[in-house]
Amino acid sequence: MATLTAPVALVGKTTESPDAVVFRGDGEPKTPELMVRRLAEIADGTGIEADNYSLGGVVEEVEKRLAAILGKEAAVFMPTGTLANHLAIRNQCGRGQRAIVQEQSHIYHDIGDCVQQLSGINLIPLANKRPYFRLEEVKAAVETSVSGRVLTPVGALVIESPVRRQHGQIMPFDVMREITEYCAANSIRTHLDGARLFMMSAATGIPPEEYSGLFDTVYVSLYKYFGAPFGAILAGTEEFCRDLYHDRRMFGGGLSNTSLAAALALQGMEGFEERFAEAMSKAEALFVELNRLDGMNVESYKHGSNIFPITPDANVDVEKLIEELANSSVFVNTDEGNPSKIHLTVNTTILRQSNEDITRAFEAALNIARS
Amino acid sequence: MATLTAPVALVGKTTESPDAVVFRGDGEPKTPELMVRRLAEIADGTGIEADNYSLGGVVEEVEKRLAAILGKEAAVFMPTGTLANHLAIRNQCGRGQRAIVQEQSHIYHDIGDCVQQLSGINLIPLANKRPYFRLEEVKAAVETSVSGRVLTPVGALVIESPVRRQHGQIMPFDVMREITEYCAANSIRTHLDGARLFMMSAATGIPPEEYSGLFDTVYVSLYKYFGAPFGAILAGTEEFCRDLYHDRRMFGGGLSNTSLAAALALQGMEGFEERFAEAMSKAEALFVELNRLDGMNVESYKHGSNIFPITPDANVDVEKLIEELANSSVFVNTDEGNPSKIHLTVNTTILRQSNEDITRAFEAALNIARS
Amino acid sequence: MATLTAPVALVGKTTESPDAVVFRGDGEPKTPELMVRRLAEIADGTGIEADNYSLGGVVEEVEKRLAAILGKEAAVFMPTGTLANHLAIRNQCGRGQRAIVQEQSHIYHDIGDCVQQLSGINLIPLANKRPYFRLEEVKAAVETSVSGRVLTPVGALVIESPVRRQHGQIMPFDVMREITEYCAANSIRTHLDGARLFMMSAATGIPPEEYSGLFDTVYVSLYKYFGAPFGAILAGTEEFCRDLYHDRRMFGGGLSNTSLAAALALQGMEGFEERFAEAMSKAEALFVELNRLDGMNVESYKHGSNIFPITPDANVDVEKLIEELANSSVFVNTDEGNPSKIHLTVNTTILRQSNEDITRAFEAALNIARS
Amino acid sequence: MATLTAPVALVGKTTESPDAVVFRGDGEPKTPELMVRRLAEIADGTGIEADNYSLGGVVEEVEKRLAAILGKEAAVFMPTGTLANHLAIRNQCGRGQRAIVQEQSHIYHDIGDCVQQLSGINLIPLANKRPYFRLEEVKAAVETSVSGRVLTPVGALVIESPVRRQHGQIMPFDVMREITEYCAANSIRTHLDGARLFMMSAATGIPPEEYSGLFDTVYVSLYKYFGAPFGAILAGTEEFCRDLYHDRRMFGGGLSNTSLAAALALQGMEGFEERFAEAMSKAEALFVELNRLDGMNVESYKHGSNIFPITPDANVDVEKLIEELANSSVFVNTDEGNPSKIHLTVNTTILRQSNEDITRAFEAALNIARS
Repeated sequence: MATLTAPVALVGKTTESPDAVVFRGDGEPKTPELMVRRLAEIADGTGIEADNYSLGGVVEEVEKRLAAILGKEAAVFMPTGTLANHLAIRNQCGRGQRAIVQEQSHIYHDIGDCVQQLSGINLIPLANKRPYFRLEEVKAAVETSVSGRVLTPVGALVIESPVRRQHGQIMPFDVMREITEYCAANSIRTHLDGARLFMMSAATGIPPEEYSGLFDTVYVSLYKYFGAPFGAILAGTEEFCRDLYHDRRMFGGGLSNTSLAAALALQGMEGFEERFAEAMSKAEALFVELNRLDGMNVESYKHGSNIFPITPDANVDVEKLIEELANSSVFVNTDEGNPSKIHLTVNTTILRQSNEDITRAFEAALNIARS
Repeated sequence: MATLTAPVALVGKTTESPDAVVFRGDGEPKTPELMVRRLAEIADGTGIEADNYSLGGVVEEVEKRLAAILGKEAAVFMPTGTLANHLAIRNQCGRGQRAIVQEQSHIYHDIGDCVQQLSGINLIPLANKRPYFRLEEVKAAVETSVSGRVLTPVGALVIESPVRRQHGQIMPFDVMREITEYCAANSIRTHLDGARLFMMSAATGIPPEEYSGLFDTVYVSLYKYFGAPFGAILAGTEEFCRDLYHDRRMFGGGLSNTSLAAALALQGMEGFEERFAEAMSKAEALFVELNRLDGMNVESYKHGSNIFPITPDANVDVEKLIEELANSSVFVNTDEGNPSKIHLTVNTTILRQSNEDITRAFEAALNIARS
Repeated sequence: MATLTAPVALVGKTTESPDAVVFRGDGEPKTPELMVRRLAEIADGTGIEADNYSLGGVVEEVEKRLAAILGKEAAVFMPTGTLANHLAIRNQCGRGQRAIVQEQSHIYHDIGDCVQQLSGINLIPLANKRPYFRLEEVKAAVETSVSGRVLTPVGALVIESPVRRQHGQIMPFDVMREITEYCAANSIRTHLDGARLFMMSAATGIPPEEYSGLFDTVYVSLYKYFGAPFGAILAGTEEFCRDLYHDRRMFGGGLSNTSLAAALALQGMEGFEERFAEAMSKAEALFVELNRLDGMNVESYKHGSNIFPITPDANVDVEKLIEELANSSVFVNTDEGNPSKIHLTVNTTILRQSNEDITRAFEAALNIARS
Repeated sequence: MATLTAPVALVGKTTESPDAVVFRGDGEPKTPELMVRRLAEIADGTGIEADNYSLGGVVEEVEKRLAAILGKEAAVFMPTGTLANHLAIRNQCGRGQRAIVQEQSHIYHDIGDCVQQLSGINLIPLANKRPYFRLEEVKAAVETSVSGRVLTPVGALVIESPVRRQHGQIMPFDVMREITEYCAANSIRTHLDGARLFMMSAATGIPPEEYSGLFDTVYVSLYKYFGAPFGAILAGTEEFCRDLYHDRRMFGGGLSNTSLAAALALQGMEGFEERFAEAMSKAEALFVELNRLDGMNVESYKHGSNIFPITPDANVDVEKLIEELANSSVFVNTDEGNPSKIHLTVNTTILRQSNEDITRAFEAALNIARS
């Protein structure tokens, strides 16, 4: 067993190297072995209290912990964000009610139309091809919903922020507040698809509970950056959450034993906000340095969070650049569908090397990649 | 009973007067008494063959008749267009498939989200606030439908034309053909919400069967202009229609005895195409005359069918104008939500007075209503 | 038109003959022509006030009239009993709740599983192959419903009585009362599928409103014996009924114009209870006479309503008997699937001939049919 | 880390003791710590190949392995048996089709009516309060399904065996074969809820693939006895399984990373059949010994698998008996709801002590517990 706690032996640099700065994904790279090693440490340390079909034990600990962070009365573990978002909408809409979502949202494009298929709820897509909608659009949709021959009132409104399909751009807090206040005044329940809520908070400096406070319910991912292999949290009132485990089981999400995933999440969220804030501020300083390099252009999106585009000069061989960076344990990706552009996603792996080292890596790589 | 076949005695002019030219609705005004009188004539004449739970008898006659007119193998009576459209989509989409509709369509706004609620099918709304979509938009939606993490392919596409929420504007035939050909080539079934198909044909001169031929299935209303109190026809292949009456009953639409409605429809469709074509051509000539009057401006919509807007001069008291016209048995409406504008809907009541009489009526009314 | 009010000319005896005693069905035979003639009389008489998409006019009159008879605050017209029953269950069950029904009920076997398919409600079938269930069975099912790993509480209970699949047998009033009281005390809503409620009342002498008073909602047919071509009434509280027309339209049951059907129902229910009670009491006396005939054995079911089995002696040729009776304008049927047994269904056509005449007809037919 | 591989230190005897014979559950007791220790061994040994949203890697290995054991073309990992059973039924029933299940099945009572609620499929419960149904009952239900006014044919039939709610009793192989052959001949797809298939095979000596061969699809649990924390396998044809991961994700069961669970299952199934067969045969010999003891009566169920009831003599204090057995690391339970009866569930922990030791433990405990 001794080998498990020892550093993983690496032949060549990989994203699993302990010094790898991986500008991909919101969390640190996970391999089964790395998770097992962390689990062994936890088991040796505090131990892991068993759950029973995702009830009690360390699962309950995670639920209470995140409910507290989000300023909600209660929270329920869900195996996936898909189910968390689905149950939020399903239980906030009465029969015959619609829900408003962003056209660019994960819910509208990436979960197999489950809300429509399984719960029969019409999702009204607003903000076509844009990161977020504004109050006026919401008002218009609400009015339309009761203008037809049959009333189909809007029962719930969901905001995803940051928006993955829009390079992690966010809806500004003021717009959110305006919309959620309007909804509250009009008996429309609100849900935050905050899978990456902690990214947003780090980017804006507005703490998670302030965002969370605007909404009736909030979903946060456990695996995107807290290090769990899977899992999600759906937080809301005591009453809203009380019987949710029945739905969870009914949908086939009542895992018999979830303590390993919950234990990893619990450990991962320890100090995460601080670490991630540090990562973001280190990234800010780093990008100033990088932009001093010849041929680099780190930019930011108008409403960006932790994703930053780089358009290297035309004479830079981007593929070569990426390859060279990897040799220095710095891993970056091109933009999907645009091989001449790079996207940096900031996460806590940025803390593994000094800005000087990272800058040097870029500089060296640029020298080689520039024609 | 003698009184029944005699002309209805009228105190003051009403839309039920035999000489009333009613520029509202696509059909002739119906009252229970008028329908009873027509039924008595039919019973006295050809008789009415009973149906059995909407199967057989005169109901089957209507089905066969419209299937022939539409050039389809078969047709099934439905109590409402809502059910006809719903079953078309429901039976053309496999599990997990989406359907494309116009954002401005009746299906998207006016039938209580029944397709989503009861059949769990996600309707993708295209052509926001416009009468119709183009092939490019369809292609983009089809591609998006298989770009998400879960495949949710488009199984069916519906075109409503004319579009009621867009002043009866139509999708041009070429656009329809291009889109339906694309769908056929991509295994996407197509349905025409042709509630007012005969209006469209009269306006474009393209016969109903040419429109119908582009689509797998077609719905046509029996009550909007054929004179039935209710009812619809859903036409398609023999195979598609064979078991539809099971669905009809399952949804609660298997009326025990529908022969009265079917008999009225059958009578009403006799010679309708010719009468309506005559009405439209008479309207065209009439509008030329009306536009010669001082203060009148009969216009037409870009892709209009049988609805025409009039914007009287500013010095005309529109309310007064309408009132005066009624005294000459000519009935018009203001535009919904715009009291200074008039909308003329052409139907076969225009045949009840000569264009000279109608023009005189407008002239006289204008004289009084002009300040 | 004169011919319409004159007696229908008959070549040979048919069930449409004005003197036909038709021991089939719960109402009087309907043909399109007979309905048109009745409509003409109504139009000539009181007139028919138009409805608008099944709202207002004579439709509202029917609703109010039956609500009053049933002792309910309100009632809503439905195109079919299928939809009436479906919406009663759909709107009485919350999400995730079950409904209890009789295994032998129309709802469980004859409406295409619409409640399960379209509303996702699990119907628990009790009283396998028997006319009705008892309180103990209900209690057991209620307990089971919350004993599984996921709560699926019983939200509604439906009683069909008389039960068509059980020769019109009824659930005794005391059993009904016991069960509905238990339900009321346990927050389980109750619905009476009283399609033939008036048959049951005539058989037991317990008035419709007493039955109705036990239940939250009641459905009564308009076409089975009130003479409408189709239609149903769903009665309940003001609150329950208020928005039901939205659901009606959403399901495709919002007929544009229903006044003809409603007018026929309204006329048909006039004095119906008295006429039917008279018919039942006349039948009772008749059966005493018939049982005196050689070879006849009119029996009754244990919990029967208006259906009575006859097992003629073995030496009687049943087919011959039926044929001979028809010559005297008395129409009877064999039992489905049992050609040696006859089923008499009592309805108001029994009032069309004297018991002496009917008895004589049986006597004469027996003489010929006896070998 | 050294402590992890060392035997768990025990203060007092618990079911986690390495020598604990635990006559409860079908598998060996699992604690988070025990699972972590096993994972560490696997990671140190063969390693764990990562999956990607439950696709590929060790997850695929488990799928292929069980497909081979079950003699099926393919298999798909599911997070729960609830989802495995649900998707089997959902994808085997066409629209409007019913499925037959046992009234006592897990599917009918314990999964929240998900098949009815989310897939709108009516489950017909047969064999009320009995372990299994016979062909005649199936035939009758199939005929009834097409006898109603709307066709609702049976599309699928599910057999759960062993039946948990019936003390693990099984449906005899011949009955299964007769029914599945009838189904195959009548276009009814068949699914085996074989959560505990390996228990059944060990009890009857009929190998899993012979059972599996009778059915179109089979579900087997990964956590009940293979040692995974959760998970299930749904096996069938290549075509049936191909796109199931879309449904899995749509339902919210597409876990981001499932390799830890899969790795544990893969290790646990290694040699399991042999070990479990050995356990069953050892149990048989043990029960002969136990029945020689004064006051013990180990019995078996008529169609039992691995559950055996004991009715100790009346003068035995059952609670005391259980307590004393625990002191010898032998753990038994009373029957649910019957404190004077014991239920022994045989699993591989029986291999941890010799039959002599276990018999001695019972003898000693009986001496103390007998009054």
